[in-house]
Amino acid sequence: MPDEIPDIVVGRLPVYLRALMRMAQESREITSSHELGQRLGISSAQIRKDLSHFGEFGKQGTGYQVKFLVEQLRRILKVDAEWGVALVGAGDLGRALAHYGGFANRGFRIVAVFDNDPAKIGMKLTGGLAVQDSSRLSDAIRQSGWKVAMVAVPADQAQAVADKLVEAGVQAILNYAPITLVVADGIRVQYIDPVVHLQRMTFYL
Amino acid sequence: MPDEIPDIVVGRLPVYLRALMRMAQESREITSSHELGQRLGISSAQIRKDLSHFGEFGKQGTGYQVKFLVEQLRRILKVDAEWGVALVGAGDLGRALAHYGGFANRGFRIVAVFDNDPAKIGMKLTGGLAVQDSSRLSDAIRQSGWKVAMVAVPADQAQAVADKLVEAGVQAILNYAPITLVVADGIRVQYIDPVVHLQRMTFYL
Repeated sequence: MPDEIPDIVVGRLPVYLRALMRMAQESREITSSHELGQRLGISSAQIRKDLSHFGEFGKQGTGYQVKFLVEQLRRILKVDAEWGVALVGAGDLGRALAHYGGFANRGFRIVAVFDNDPAKIGMKLTGGLAVQDSSRLSDAIRQSGWKVAMVAVPADQAQAVADKLVEAGVQAILNYAPITLVVADGIRVQYIDPVVHLQRMTFYL
Repeated sequence: MPDEIPDIVVGRLPVYLRALMRMAQESREITSSHELGQRLGISSAQIRKDLSHFGEFGKQGTGYQVKFLVEQLRRILKVDAEWGVALVGAGDLGRALAHYGGFANRGFRIVAVFDNDPAKIGMKLTGGLAVQDSSRLSDAIRQSGWKVAMVAVPADQAQAVADKLVEAGVQAILNYAPITLVVADGIRVQYIDPVVHLQRMTFYL
């Protein structure tokens, strides 16, 4: 089934899940595509259409059970269990990611942090992780079977790091380095570059 | 003209610019849509079509002058001058952003950092900025005329911060808080939430 789902639909599911988890935190039990749409600035028809790719999650007129829809979306996005994430790069950004509380309960946990800077190797991070030598990266990934990694190294090191990660078995990379990575077919890469987002807005100013 | 350009095209321009600036750093003088496409995993036809919305930037058979195309894209994206950016939130992420070297030369400079935590107010950041009291936010924005802001506060504070920013004149917000903001028409918001990107990939694993 996943092959038939447009990627743009897949991209909206995490945003739906995030909003629904927030509603659950607020102890909301029922919501509607209308209410969800208003929170997200998306039409209710779009939300219903997106969700209909995956089944029937609500009843006409009674809306969605928040908790049930959260569970379903977690299952669909495969975050009903927790993914161990390898983080490469322990600079300012990498350390901020290692300390970030927002991964918990959303399907991800940073399980190892690597850097090639001798000054950073051995550094203890909040949460008890210690920065490991990047030379251990490939072995650690192979032994642990981690499939997901985050790259927070300088642009000129990112491709080499990505190559290592993929060779060792990583299938999904979230890349913070401001460079487009070249990877084999079937390997997923997502990008976070604040400047790209900012420039996308200044175009309209 | 901007009204007619699909937003998805606008979203690719910063990526083209980033790759072209990298080529310029590598002292490359000429490139082609083919080469650019290979670096970016985008078809050369797509690149030519995207750029054709804005004019004629290359000649059939001779390709693009890297430096010229960089200048043109900087002009189109309005980053040929530098935007002062107000940053709200001086936690781990906010401080990492304040220290991030990747804004320089790409059109943005963090000019002020705000937080409401007394323990952080007055803290000196790399680059010489000191964290200011959030109570000064509105006045500072009004006086300085800043149009662009980054929000790196907890989710439950983000909407209130965004409301303040917009009321004071900000027109573009890059939001790192894991929540969708409700803003008036015409205000641009972009989102960075690593979990949304990660979940978008685990769907396919």
